[in-house]
Amino acid sequence: MAGPEPLFDKIALIGIGLIGSSLARVVRRDNLARHIAIATRSEKTLARARELGLGDSYTTDAAQAAKDADLVIVSVPVGSSGDVAKEIAPVLKPGAIVTDVGSTKRSVIAQMAPHMPAGVHFIPGHPLAGTEKSGPDAGFADLFENRWCIFTPLPGTDPAALERLSEFWRRCGSNIDTMDPDHHDKVLAIVSHLPHIIAYNIVGTANDLEAVTQSEVIKYSASGFRDFTRLAASDPTMWRDVCLHNKDAILEMLARFSEDLASLQRAIRWGDGDKLFDLFTHTRAVRRSIIEAGQEIDVPDFGRQAIEHPRK
Amino acid sequence: MAGPEPLFDKIALIGIGLIGSSLARVVRRDNLARHIAIATRSEKTLARARELGLGDSYTTDAAQAAKDADLVIVSVPVGSSGDVAKEIAPVLKPGAIVTDVGSTKRSVIAQMAPHMPAGVHFIPGHPLAGTEKSGPDAGFADLFENRWCIFTPLPGTDPAALERLSEFWRRCGSNIDTMDPDHHDKVLAIVSHLPHIIAYNIVGTANDLEAVTQSEVIKYSASGFRDFTRLAASDPTMWRDVCLHNKDAILEMLARFSEDLASLQRAIRWGDGDKLFDLFTHTRAVRRSIIEAGQEIDVPDFGRQAIEHPRK
Repeated sequence: MAGPEPLFDKIALIGIGLIGSSLARVVRRDNLARHIAIATRSEKTLARARELGLGDSYTTDAAQAAKDADLVIVSVPVGSSGDVAKEIAPVLKPGAIVTDVGSTKRSVIAQMAPHMPAGVHFIPGHPLAGTEKSGPDAGFADLFENRWCIFTPLPGTDPAALERLSEFWRRCGSNIDTMDPDHHDKVLAIVSHLPHIIAYNIVGTANDLEAVTQSEVIKYSASGFRDFTRLAASDPTMWRDVCLHNKDAILEMLARFSEDLASLQRAIRWGDGDKLFDLFTHTRAVRRSIIEAGQEIDVPDFGRQAIEHPRK
Repeated sequence: MAGPEPLFDKIALIGIGLIGSSLARVVRRDNLARHIAIATRSEKTLARARELGLGDSYTTDAAQAAKDADLVIVSVPVGSSGDVAKEIAPVLKPGAIVTDVGSTKRSVIAQMAPHMPAGVHFIPGHPLAGTEKSGPDAGFADLFENRWCIFTPLPGTDPAALERLSEFWRRCGSNIDTMDPDHHDKVLAIVSHLPHIIAYNIVGTANDLEAVTQSEVIKYSASGFRDFTRLAASDPTMWRDVCLHNKDAILEMLARFSEDLASLQRAIRWGDGDKLFDLFTHTRAVRRSIIEAGQEIDVPDFGRQAIEHPRK
């Protein structure tokens, strides 16, 4: 029953939150590396990773984990990628692949690329996977299953290194795409950053009303509001950094959103039922496409009912 | 094994969409009435209700269903409640209870109350339950389980009739609240109407971009966007009518939302990380409260992962 050979001798996971710990679990389960080195700055998080048995070695020193590693995966809030790059740069072994999982790519490249020594393959990456939970307990081996992982390779990237990293992510369950970093940042601004910002905002608005109490918002949340609270429960440090590091694309998408909302608001004010009906019909088709693309389950109410009432 | 006596001899369900057909199913399952009369204007929907065996009699004539009924439940888009009230008024039997399930209450009262004959108990109601699906196939008997049903009784409402209707909804699984119709409309504007409008809007914005293709939005939607597509797949007629019939409260909440969004946008533009972090931390607590209140399942990602990977 011996599976395929491990792809790497030593993998270093810098950061062991939701993404890092999911990687640790799938690497272990599917034998993708002989040694998993785990580094995180927080003593507490490191102790928890050790308790969970996520790796083979544990350290608060990123450089120690990265030393001799064939693959280094940086899974930290994007605002910290520059510091990590600086720390690990001196010990990176020639031929090593360094990648990241950050939700913004132009900023990560600007922070990390200047530190990367010649002979090291720096390939920026972004697995589009996650939940609203964070920390080493939140990860699971199936997180990347049937999700997309986007690479934004720099000019002159070694095709063999890119293929090796792609094979790693495919073995984690992902589909692979590559694109230009600026395009990535625009795409993510609309499919991920704007939705999170809007969700944070509406939950904030509901929290601040005088006419409707907080307890009413909570009691009656099943009528729509609760859907937004999932994204708005995401990791605050990660999302603060995303906002600060993809500012231009986010502001562009926010301007579009607000323009469209003003137009919708006007249709409500003037009772333009046809315009409302047209928009509400059009958007219904988008969900069907997402379900057909295998990126959403085909179960009403996200499957909540199926979980609450399993006998049906 | 005889259960409790049926609460009513004859129930008339005017409208047999998601809500009406869920009522039909729970009334049948739990023996809440001796006869279920179903009326809907659409021949096609009526034929489907008959195929599904949802009732005991079927008609496209609301008055015929309402004749001799002890309880009439109007489950139509709120813009049609006036027409239905006018149609059924002449045949209503003295002592009958008439209620509705509409998402706006002030407008429904204005449309229906003037038609109600003396001796009939008109008690406006709103079960806060639903999914993004619509039509008679979408209903299920557990829909109202542990959800709130809000009554907005008019001055002088007979307490015995209100209690009888409350008992009916409790037997359907609901918790009961009563409030003033204006307050209901404000509460629903923030917990339900604004979330739907925002969801429709963001899906519309994503649909109209030039820089990001439609197929990219769909492929990468699991990174946040897909959460919004559920609400934005809701019934267009129902939601057009909600927007037209709760205009004042919706415009008030939209103004709040836009004001907060402008402030958040400014924080992004000027790199105010502390402000972003504070908001993003605060909103996280709201979801915890909703889970504690039993209005959301305590499973990451709405349980999608549990459904996709059931072995875990």
